[in-house]
Amino acid sequence: MEMARPSRLVIVGGVAGGATAASKARRCCPDAEIEIYDQDEFISYAGCGLPYFIGGYSPNWRKLLARTPEEFKSRQGISVFLRHRVDAIDPENKSIRVVDLEGVSESRREYDKLILATGAAPILPDIPGRELEGVFALRSLTHALEMKAFIDKRAPRRAAVVGGGAIGLEMCEAFRRLEMEVHLVELAGQVMPPLDTDLASRVAAHLEENGVRLHLGARIEALESKDGAVTRLTTSQGSIDAELVLLSMGIRPVSGLAQRAGIELGVKGAIKVDERMRTNLPDILACGDCATTYNLVSRRESWIPLGSTARKQGRVAAETASGEESAFPGVQGTFILKSFEKTVGKTGLSASEAGDAGFDAQALTLEGSSLPGYYRGGGRMTVKLTVERPSGRVLGAQVVGDFASQADKRLDIFAMAVQASLTASDLASLDLAYAPPFSEALDLPIVAGNLAEAKVLGKVCTCNAEGLED
Amino acid sequence: MEMARPSRLVIVGGVAGGATAASKARRCCPDAEIEIYDQDEFISYAGCGLPYFIGGYSPNWRKLLARTPEEFKSRQGISVFLRHRVDAIDPENKSIRVVDLEGVSESRREYDKLILATGAAPILPDIPGRELEGVFALRSLTHALEMKAFIDKRAPRRAAVVGGGAIGLEMCEAFRRLEMEVHLVELAGQVMPPLDTDLASRVAAHLEENGVRLHLGARIEALESKDGAVTRLTTSQGSIDAELVLLSMGIRPVSGLAQRAGIELGVKGAIKVDERMRTNLPDILACGDCATTYNLVSRRESWIPLGSTARKQGRVAAETASGEESAFPGVQGTFILKSFEKTVGKTGLSASEAGDAGFDAQALTLEGSSLPGYYRGGGRMTVKLTVERPSGRVLGAQVVGDFASQADKRLDIFAMAVQASLTASDLASLDLAYAPPFSEALDLPIVAGNLAEAKVLGKVCTCNAEGLED
Repeated sequence: MEMARPSRLVIVGGVAGGATAASKARRCCPDAEIEIYDQDEFISYAGCGLPYFIGGYSPNWRKLLARTPEEFKSRQGISVFLRHRVDAIDPENKSIRVVDLEGVSESRREYDKLILATGAAPILPDIPGRELEGVFALRSLTHALEMKAFIDKRAPRRAAVVGGGAIGLEMCEAFRRLEMEVHLVELAGQVMPPLDTDLASRVAAHLEENGVRLHLGARIEALESKDGAVTRLTTSQGSIDAELVLLSMGIRPVSGLAQRAGIELGVKGAIKVDERMRTNLPDILACGDCATTYNLVSRRESWIPLGSTARKQGRVAAETASGEESAFPGVQGTFILKSFEKTVGKTGLSASEAGDAGFDAQALTLEGSSLPGYYRGGGRMTVKLTVERPSGRVLGAQVVGDFASQADKRLDIFAMAVQASLTASDLASLDLAYAPPFSEALDLPIVAGNLAEAKVLGKVCTCNAEGLED
Repeated sequence: MEMARPSRLVIVGGVAGGATAASKARRCCPDAEIEIYDQDEFISYAGCGLPYFIGGYSPNWRKLLARTPEEFKSRQGISVFLRHRVDAIDPENKSIRVVDLEGVSESRREYDKLILATGAAPILPDIPGRELEGVFALRSLTHALEMKAFIDKRAPRRAAVVGGGAIGLEMCEAFRRLEMEVHLVELAGQVMPPLDTDLASRVAAHLEENGVRLHLGARIEALESKDGAVTRLTTSQGSIDAELVLLSMGIRPVSGLAQRAGIELGVKGAIKVDERMRTNLPDILACGDCATTYNLVSRRESWIPLGSTARKQGRVAAETASGEESAFPGVQGTFILKSFEKTVGKTGLSASEAGDAGFDAQALTLEGSSLPGYYRGGGRMTVKLTVERPSGRVLGAQVVGDFASQADKRLDIFAMAVQASLTASDLASLDLAYAPPFSEALDLPIVAGNLAEAKVLGKVCTCNAEGLED
């Protein structure tokens, strides 16, 4: 096959998907001109590491940089234009209009292939006071540096975190490490809304054990200030004194540039792409948090922005742009987070989500230990498995466990089971790595498989980790 | 379907497979008489935990017992006959002959279904002195108690471990914890012969760092003694002073009883079973270390005795004996062990084993960190992946890593990839659980998938954990 390699590849946005796309494109197209434009001051950094920078695990923010613009230039011959905003695409003439935010000059740049990696932006509440000193979102490294400078200067004693998703929970831990009084405000009646209520309540209890004050089912109404700095957050359940307010209410895809160019948007306003990361317009691709993906379980177009997915999509976007055959099949929405000494995660669908997606599904909850009782260490974890009837296919799993239980290992096992369309019976037969320092003889996913298989078949089964029945 | 439930189910051997079979059979057949006969003093214990009992992780041996004979009786109405040896099977009359080793009386017991779970026995060298005081095998809890009593009484200063497989390595660690001088004697030119030499040499180096003196390529020739107790081990490479000698040269299936009854044996003399655990004789099943299994990768009958497999086979044997539909598809030979602060394991085939099994296979080695550089903790690991050409199918993986790197998690991911016949491309698209406390953005199996896919396709690829190329 004749591969039409681009001679000019332009990438808009360079955090995760864009940086990966540029780097992979250079590997595929040694002779092309490759340019990254980003309106921020930083590219190619670990966005998921920002809470750990704030919390002091990694005091040097430079460690978050995977590759600097200078390194892109010297190692790969990729030109990076920071503080350059792309404000229009001309698909007819295959060019973009670029605004230099420092010089405030405009220019026009042509492309053979254009990859949009414009990412996502924080959802901010429609209330006054968002611009007050002490009120932050945490999405970019710039945000993190601003927040860190504020904390270092003002040493706030009280923080209010608005939004109990992954970032919110990670930041509760970071602020507690910094010895602040921490309030978590969440509109829903539970933390981590993607989790079932029973598992979320375990997470909530652990947050409270660690000194986080929960305000669930509370809507934020106003921010009060003194001398331009926030002093109080008013909610539907009363007001909270706080000198630091983090707005972590979720994110939305940055797709306005694409939309103005006539590029079709998909679910939740993300740029609609196929499995080769192509948009509806020729020679324009998209990847990362600005783009749609495909949910392998629900078989629906989805928007599930994650740094790991962005990097996988970035590779495929670059390969497609380079004329190679490549595809990203999709995801099942796996996520994980550490909250103090608990691991919390999910892959695939809950039973109610599976029902919404048209499955006849049922859930099964079990608890277990990671290691045999005669070995030291390890921990306990709870697994909630979603199984399709009558096939026994594993549609999803949720886990909440002690960090020391390596619940992440079991979540990855379930993630693979979901991705490979395994059944409960397949789980029960998994040849996992067993020795006492690593697991019970029958590790939790195997026990779960036995229990789920019996349940789907309507049989009684009380298999334990030693293969015995009660 | 009419299910013919047995009214008398007899099980020979009760450590892992037999205990599980009895327990599961009770669940399937509430009204049956179920009996376990075992010539030893103990059943239903964690054989894999014995090195940790000796090494002092678990000083109370009762913790190794999953269920006592009394508990089998009171909780499940299962009758356990300890110190009873079954020395003949009469398939025509569906009965067994049982010798009471305490009373030395014989009796005949009838069965509707018979499950053989006779396990495996240590391979002992054909040299004099095996019965000397201080010379041990470590296969049963009885062995362990004898060795522990010897250690407590004699406080040996020097131990020689003969055989550098999993038990040998685990016991080197146990003896070092007990502050003995430890020599490891292995006939092969490397420790852990199932591993490729390059990986085995890393394990060997770690053993030496932890004070284990290696004697590789050494054949044992004689045991010297004084006053009936061992004092020295002579090998083809010289002699080693030792008051404690562990013979961990491997095991063989205990299948003589079956063979005498006309039951067909398979590979390595193990009892040949189908995927429902049936032998060639009607109403006689087998499970656990005495039975064959099926290698899902090589597609060959195999003998891979492991406690986890025994329990899975025990469940299926009981279900088949109870007239239910059930099958154990097989294994890919996954194993793991902890050796001091390293994790060592394998799943599926090495490249040379794959070649022997008729695959066009190639290997790929990569090293990586478990966690991002900006997060604390974690460790490094080396993975050697076996991939089929040109399909890219993952045929196996070997790992050697820091215990803190959670190499076990990655080994399980590879084990599932092998079991589900995933390709390198599938690995690259895995939706694993990513957050900085758990992995890099692209966890090692995903990076391995990218590298392997490119290698199989003959392309250059230098993907790293941040999705970037060099």
